[in-house]
Amino acid sequence: MPEHTRPARGMRDFLPEDVRRRDYVIAIVRDVYQRYGFEPLETPSLENIETLTGKYGEEGNKLIFKVLRRGEHESSGETDLALRYDLTVPLARVVAEYRGKLPKFFKRYQIQPVWRADRPARGRFREFYQCDVDSIGSRSMVVEAELCSAVSDVLTRLGFDNFTLKLNDRRVLSGLLYAAGVPAEMHGTALVALDKLDKVGFEGVERELRERGVPPGDDGRYLGPWRQLLPLWENASDPAQANHDSIDLLRQLLAGHVEAREGVDDLDEILRYSSGTSAGRHLRFDATLARGLSYYTGAIMEITVPDLAGSLGGGGRYDNLIGMFLGENIPACGFSLGLERILVVMSERQMFPADVQQAAADVMITLFDSLSVEDALALASELRADGRRVEVYPEPDKLGKQFKYAAARGVRYVLVVGADERARNEVTVKDMTTGDQTSVPRAELQARLQAARHG
Amino acid sequence: MPEHTRPARGMRDFLPEDVRRRDYVIAIVRDVYQRYGFEPLETPSLENIETLTGKYGEEGNKLIFKVLRRGEHESSGETDLALRYDLTVPLARVVAEYRGKLPKFFKRYQIQPVWRADRPARGRFREFYQCDVDSIGSRSMVVEAELCSAVSDVLTRLGFDNFTLKLNDRRVLSGLLYAAGVPAEMHGTALVALDKLDKVGFEGVERELRERGVPPGDDGRYLGPWRQLLPLWENASDPAQANHDSIDLLRQLLAGHVEAREGVDDLDEILRYSSGTSAGRHLRFDATLARGLSYYTGAIMEITVPDLAGSLGGGGRYDNLIGMFLGENIPACGFSLGLERILVVMSERQMFPADVQQAAADVMITLFDSLSVEDALALASELRADGRRVEVYPEPDKLGKQFKYAAARGVRYVLVVGADERARNEVTVKDMTTGDQTSVPRAELQARLQAARHG
Repeated sequence: MPEHTRPARGMRDFLPEDVRRRDYVIAIVRDVYQRYGFEPLETPSLENIETLTGKYGEEGNKLIFKVLRRGEHESSGETDLALRYDLTVPLARVVAEYRGKLPKFFKRYQIQPVWRADRPARGRFREFYQCDVDSIGSRSMVVEAELCSAVSDVLTRLGFDNFTLKLNDRRVLSGLLYAAGVPAEMHGTALVALDKLDKVGFEGVERELRERGVPPGDDGRYLGPWRQLLPLWENASDPAQANHDSIDLLRQLLAGHVEAREGVDDLDEILRYSSGTSAGRHLRFDATLARGLSYYTGAIMEITVPDLAGSLGGGGRYDNLIGMFLGENIPACGFSLGLERILVVMSERQMFPADVQQAAADVMITLFDSLSVEDALALASELRADGRRVEVYPEPDKLGKQFKYAAARGVRYVLVVGADERARNEVTVKDMTTGDQTSVPRAELQARLQAARHG
Repeated sequence: MPEHTRPARGMRDFLPEDVRRRDYVIAIVRDVYQRYGFEPLETPSLENIETLTGKYGEEGNKLIFKVLRRGEHESSGETDLALRYDLTVPLARVVAEYRGKLPKFFKRYQIQPVWRADRPARGRFREFYQCDVDSIGSRSMVVEAELCSAVSDVLTRLGFDNFTLKLNDRRVLSGLLYAAGVPAEMHGTALVALDKLDKVGFEGVERELRERGVPPGDDGRYLGPWRQLLPLWENASDPAQANHDSIDLLRQLLAGHVEAREGVDDLDEILRYSSGTSAGRHLRFDATLARGLSYYTGAIMEITVPDLAGSLGGGGRYDNLIGMFLGENIPACGFSLGLERILVVMSERQMFPADVQQAAADVMITLFDSLSVEDALALASELRADGRRVEVYPEPDKLGKQFKYAAARGVRYVLVVGADERARNEVTVKDMTTGDQTSVPRAELQARLQAARHG
C-alpha cells in the first residue's frame, strides 16, 4: 500500500510557481536591504534549547518545536535542541559570540524560515519565512528612520502604496497609562484591553478595564489621554499635521514623566528624519499600538494595509536583549517583514508581474530518434551558453505530441532538427505564439532567436 | 551570568562574508539549472516521521533528527515529525501527491538544507545544503546526459576544470560481481571491499574478500573483471578511447547477463550523447564506483576533484523510489551537489571573484549634528533609488572617526554635507582609495559617482 504523501500538518510544499513568487519577493527585499548597507546573516535552524527558552514568554515556550536527544539518550524522551522560533534571539546570540569580529554598527538582514507549533489557520503556518533587518550598536533615531525607510522601499518596490507605518514608543505608552491612572502592575492588563479599541470602541475597552479592576484616572474618567489623542486623527487630511499635533499633545500630557518625554522626543526625531524618505508619507503616530513582544524598550512600529487584518510586519527597539547573552547591554532596533502575509495580499491583488509566472524554458528542442540526440544536445549546449533556457524533449516521440507538450508548457520556440534539416545544416524554428514555422541556417539561429526575443 | 553563545554542535553561524560566498555559488547553480529547463521546488523542513523512516537504511535511520510531540503528548517522549534528511525522498512524496498537477516530464531543482546527526568532522556538519536536480518521467538516457551536462556547466562556471565525472551502472556492477563469481547474497559485502581498491590495491581487496568468505571466480582468481577493466585507464591519454575500450570489454565480459548488457548499452548512450556537451571530456567509466544509497537502479555518477577526498556530488537513476509513495513506479534520475564541499575547495583554491568579498556599501554619508540628519537621509534615498548601496553613519560624531570607520568597512566614497556644503548646495566627495576630496554641486553628484564607478 502506498504511503501518505501529504506534507505534515501546517507545512507546505512549494511547487514551481509558488517558489517563483517567493523568490521574486525575496530578491526585492534583499536588494533593498543591501542598498541600505545591511549585510546578510544566516543562523542554524537548530539552536541549543536553553538559547530559546525563557525568551518568548510562557505561551511562546509551548510553541517551540523540540528535538529528541539521539543515540543512547533517545529513549529518555529528553530534548537538547529546538527549532528557531524567530530571527531576533539568534541575532542577539550571534552579536554576543562574534562581538570582536563585527563592525561597531552591525547592520544585518536575515531571510530564513522559523517554526512555531501554532494551530494552523488561513495564512498561519508552522513553518514560515521572516525577513528581518536589524541595526545593532547605536541609540540614534537615525536607526529607526533608516529601518522605516527600508521597509517602505521594499513595499513600494513590490507595488504597495496604501500601507500605513504605525509608530509608537513603549515609554510613551507607559507614560500614557500612568497619566490615565493605571498603576504599573496593571499596565499589561490595560494594554490587552486597549488593543481592542479598534473593534469595541471606548465603551468596550472601558467596560473591560472596569471588570478587570483597573481604576479610572484622577478625573474619574477611563482612557483620558486616548480620548484626547485619537480625535486628532479623525478625518485627518494631512498626516504630517496630525503627527505634529500628536507630538505637541503628548508633550503636554506627559509633562511630568521624564522617560516618556524622552520617548516623545525620539518619536519627534523619527518623524522629522523621515520627512525626506519614502517612509515619510506612511508614518502615523498610533497611541494604541503596543506590539506583543516583551523585549521592546523604545520605539515600536507596525505595517498595516486596509485589506488585511493583522500586520505585514513590525519591529522596534530592544536595547536590553543582547545583554542577556553578552552580560553588557548593546542598543538594537529591528524590523521583521512577514513573507507569507505579503504573498497572501500580493496574490489576492494580483500584484505579480507577468514574467514571474514565466514558462520553465524559452526554447524546446524536439527529438526524433537516437541518432538525432547527440546533435540536439550539442545545439542545446550552444543556446544555453548564450543564456537561453532550453528544454530538450527527453525521448524520441511523434512530433505532434512534442509540439503539444511544448504548448502546454508555455514554451515560445520549438526547434526541429530532423534528418532533412541536418543534411542542409538547418534548424526549423516554430514560434508557438504565431504558429509561424521557418527553416533557418544553423549559423543564423542565435541571431534569429535574438531578434525574436527582443521583437 | 550571560548565556552560552556558541551555535549548537555541528551547526554553523554564517557571517556576512560566508553568506556572500554561499549566495554566489547558489546563484550560479540556480542559473545553470534554469537554463536546462529545471524548475524550483521547495519542501517543508519537517516531514511526518513515517515519510522518512525505512528510506535510508539502518544507519541512516539513526541519524534522523526527530521532533517531540507537543502539548499533552510532550511528556510521552513520542515523536511525530522529523527533519528532512535528503531532498530525494521529499521529491518522491511530492511527485506522488501532485502527480496530476505536474508535467509528464517533471524537471526540478531544489536547494535547501538537510539535517543529519552525524559525528561532526572537517567539512561534515549536522545542517548542510544540498543542490539537487532531478528529472522525473523518462527512461531515456537523454536524462542522464542532460544531468551530467548541467552539473559540468555548474562546475565550469564556478571555475573548476580538472574534475572527473565518474560513471557506472548498478546493473553492470551486479553483472561484474556475478562474472567474478560472487554470489548475490555477498554483493553488498564485496562492494564494501571493492570501494577500498583505490587505497589498498588488488591485494588488499582480495585479502578482505577472502577473510569475509567471498569465493573466487571460476578461474580461481579474485576480481577478475576489474583486473581487466582497470588497466584500460592506466596512463590513458585519451579518455574517450578508454571509455570506448571499456564499453567493448564490458560487452565481452557481460555477454551472458541480459540486465547488465542493458546497463552497458545505457552507458554507451550516455557517453555518446554527452560528446557534444560540457560533460563530454569529464566523463570516465569507473568500474569501482558503487554509490552508497540502496535506491539506485541504473546509471550512477559521482564528481571528484584531485584535491578533495570524497566527492563534490553524485547521483543516479532510481526508477522504483516514487513507487513507494505512489504505488506505481515512475522512472527518475537525479544528481545532488554538496554545497559545503564545493565551498571548501573554492575557499582553499581562492576561486571566489573579488566582488563576492565586496564592502557592504559603495558610499557612506557622514553625520555632523541632528540638523544635518534630515538632509543626509534624503540624499541617501536619492542615491539608493539610483541603485547605490549607501550607508549613513548612524550618529553625529567627529569627522575623523567617521572616515576611519568608512575605511575599516572598505567603503569607497565618503560624502560630507556640512553647514558650508549645505549653504552652497554642494556635497564633498572623498574617494577613500585615492584620498582625493572634491566639492561637487549637489545636482552633479550622481553623474560624478557614476563616472567614478565606471572609471
